[in-house]
Amino acid sequence: MSAPVVSAILENLPAHQVITDPDSVEGFSHDQAAWAPYGRPAAVVKAASAQDVAHVVRACVRHRTPVVARGAGTGLSGGANAADGQVVVALDAMDRILEVNPLERLAVVQPGVVNDHLRAAAAEHGLWYPPDPASSPWSTIGGNVATNAGGVCCVKYGVTRDYVLGLELVNGLGEVVRLGRRTAKGVAGYDLAGLVVGSEGTLGIVTEVTVRLRPLPGPAITVAGFFSSVTDAGAAVRAVGAAGLTPSALELVDRHCLRAVDAWKNMGLSVDADVVLLGRLDDPGDTGARAAERMVECFRGAGATWAERSTDEQEADALFAARRLAYPALERLGPVLTEDVCVPKEHVPEMLGRIEKAAVRHDVVIANIAHAGDGNLHPLLITPPGDEAAKARAQAAFDDIVADAIALGGTVTGEHGVGLLKQPGLAAEITPEVMAMHRAVKQALDPHGVLNPGKILS
Amino acid sequence: MSAPVVSAILENLPAHQVITDPDSVEGFSHDQAAWAPYGRPAAVVKAASAQDVAHVVRACVRHRTPVVARGAGTGLSGGANAADGQVVVALDAMDRILEVNPLERLAVVQPGVVNDHLRAAAAEHGLWYPPDPASSPWSTIGGNVATNAGGVCCVKYGVTRDYVLGLELVNGLGEVVRLGRRTAKGVAGYDLAGLVVGSEGTLGIVTEVTVRLRPLPGPAITVAGFFSSVTDAGAAVRAVGAAGLTPSALELVDRHCLRAVDAWKNMGLSVDADVVLLGRLDDPGDTGARAAERMVECFRGAGATWAERSTDEQEADALFAARRLAYPALERLGPVLTEDVCVPKEHVPEMLGRIEKAAVRHDVVIANIAHAGDGNLHPLLITPPGDEAAKARAQAAFDDIVADAIALGGTVTGEHGVGLLKQPGLAAEITPEVMAMHRAVKQALDPHGVLNPGKILS
Repeated sequence: MSAPVVSAILENLPAHQVITDPDSVEGFSHDQAAWAPYGRPAAVVKAASAQDVAHVVRACVRHRTPVVARGAGTGLSGGANAADGQVVVALDAMDRILEVNPLERLAVVQPGVVNDHLRAAAAEHGLWYPPDPASSPWSTIGGNVATNAGGVCCVKYGVTRDYVLGLELVNGLGEVVRLGRRTAKGVAGYDLAGLVVGSEGTLGIVTEVTVRLRPLPGPAITVAGFFSSVTDAGAAVRAVGAAGLTPSALELVDRHCLRAVDAWKNMGLSVDADVVLLGRLDDPGDTGARAAERMVECFRGAGATWAERSTDEQEADALFAARRLAYPALERLGPVLTEDVCVPKEHVPEMLGRIEKAAVRHDVVIANIAHAGDGNLHPLLITPPGDEAAKARAQAAFDDIVADAIALGGTVTGEHGVGLLKQPGLAAEITPEVMAMHRAVKQALDPHGVLNPGKILS
Repeated sequence: MSAPVVSAILENLPAHQVITDPDSVEGFSHDQAAWAPYGRPAAVVKAASAQDVAHVVRACVRHRTPVVARGAGTGLSGGANAADGQVVVALDAMDRILEVNPLERLAVVQPGVVNDHLRAAAAEHGLWYPPDPASSPWSTIGGNVATNAGGVCCVKYGVTRDYVLGLELVNGLGEVVRLGRRTAKGVAGYDLAGLVVGSEGTLGIVTEVTVRLRPLPGPAITVAGFFSSVTDAGAAVRAVGAAGLTPSALELVDRHCLRAVDAWKNMGLSVDADVVLLGRLDDPGDTGARAAERMVECFRGAGATWAERSTDEQEADALFAARRLAYPALERLGPVLTEDVCVPKEHVPEMLGRIEKAAVRHDVVIANIAHAGDGNLHPLLITPPGDEAAKARAQAAFDDIVADAIALGGTVTGEHGVGLLKQPGLAAEITPEVMAMHRAVKQALDPHGVLNPGKILS
């Protein structure tokens, strides 16, 4: 006996698109935020079109049942987690690239298109979609839009929001609407497309995305620096900013990550360095070469034990591969609680220092990877599987890190989103008046309260 | 005997900040949209602080009186026009640059800071605030934020929205709130700061702006092309896009503008050219030089009667000066009705052709300046002073141009905003469902309907 909302959905959609078998549903019930709660959804609908999504939302409105949109489920804050009886709309099958237009420098894609697939399609035309979350081989553009995903190159090229021109959306009334535009500029009405970016499915479900593209960047120079402490590395990051450099990447990987990658892939990285900073400079010609020299000087001035412009492309690639492998390598050691604070560049060394102190204070292993160049730090709190006491200590450290980020003028989430994990942080970061404005906007665009309720706003 | 709302304002503000003398008030009652209606405001409040603005909004809420924010009054769509009995908040005296921070690459300014003053302050640190509306010597950052102002360099560097990190705002309840952030990235909650950008004072009154800065660009190469028709020039614009070039400016000035500038400043421009295209390329070194060569080829291939990379800096400056002088030069000839459509690059030649046909069909003089590189066209409809029949014909041509822009997949306003003049256009461009979403957001953030009501949404 299925729930009334499921029967209503089945009135308009074929049974093969509506999954209700509990074992099959389970795989669609949560994202990769291992610590966030989730339940047993009533059904998973595999949407094939915007009309499918509209049918589902209208059925959910009639039955006052929450609907949770999901792409690849690679989120890290629980934004796509579904509670008991909720309906999940899976958009991964809507995976067509509808247009790549070199003249207008835009692409139109369905939400289930994988980030790397869009990049590859753009590259065939000499074009580039910059936002590059570490999940880019798996995560979808719809999910990237929902979380306003960032990535490695965002330090120079911006985040998802900077590339979304227009959206097709199923709104809170189950209507299919178009927001934004295809033109290079436009100010006709409120920027509702921009408002939807980062709203985690709470203001509408994105069914098509028009993104701006850029020309492919030229070859980049890699600069690597080894440091004996994260605070020295943080000082180097600040020095790069103070020198007026504009790297196209500036990443930090600490010894915990290097060791985990070594233990997994045997790359021999942790022998040489305690903390690695990886910079990239893609300005053409002499400009890039001069900037690389200055970055080396910044690294050395901040106490690098070794710093050079890489002359070995394989070595440079290996270091960036280690950066990408850090997260999965750490996950092999136990459940990972992922932090995502972002602080002003000035405070990067102080924040890294406070994270180390929190690790000691709460007796918890905290590894660090960071989009250090824009102050976006990802402390990764690792606990042995099944160790509840360690988990409680990790949660306490997590809370301290969030509080420290706010105290230093930062934000509780740089690119992963609020989801479930960062709701207390959001409430601490913004005032009650601003929270009330959030609630008013949510109520305005989701008057029946069916769009992913309980995410971002509790 | 002053209106009750004025008495309420005077309870909290000194009399010298509250102007009620009708002659003095008149100068604050409208912007530069000569064709848009306005009335006699009850008072003009010269705000000196966010608290002043909050007092005014709270008084207006109590007395259900609309409040219209204004900066320098250089708007071109009537967004700052005030009707009878409304209260104007003038923010031009809040003109302090509070911070220019080279490390974080941001500036914090009050809303009355003039665009060029911010640029000059940033330049002292080797930094740059790119959005450069033609009004930059007079227009204020608050007004630029309210309209999401564009400009010449936006074709490469983006518009105001791309540079706003955070805002202090007086909301519809008269509360002073902070939206957005100071960090490079952040996704804590909805992008309400982005929503306010371009909302023309209808969702809140901006009392402080935190803007992102960039490094000053290097020297640019200017490429000029002369054409015998606007459609040839339009074809050249499309060719530049198709060639994959990324100019830092690509401006069009037609013969009406050149003649008007010559008549005023005697620059001798209209002797050589019917239509001028001006490109700028600021990529460093050889990259810029090669791009300039390709742009010259694009111009020639599209039928330029003459096209060269400028070797004479004075000549290049004179051409860009003519671009800037075109609007005031035309205003000397009669009331100007300013268009602001933006179309996909593909359709720039077609749109320019349709504008010419509208001029012939309705027997009205239409001059063209354009941020052609991003398809943002500014047909300027000029009528002899006092000629009501000509004014009616111009209005008909204006309506046709708006309809043509929508038919070609464009938008009715690229950078000037909806204000009063583009309300019919907005209603034609977006669907009733999207209009309803706009109204819901407006109602949510301005529940008492006091924030510049009747603008954007009728």
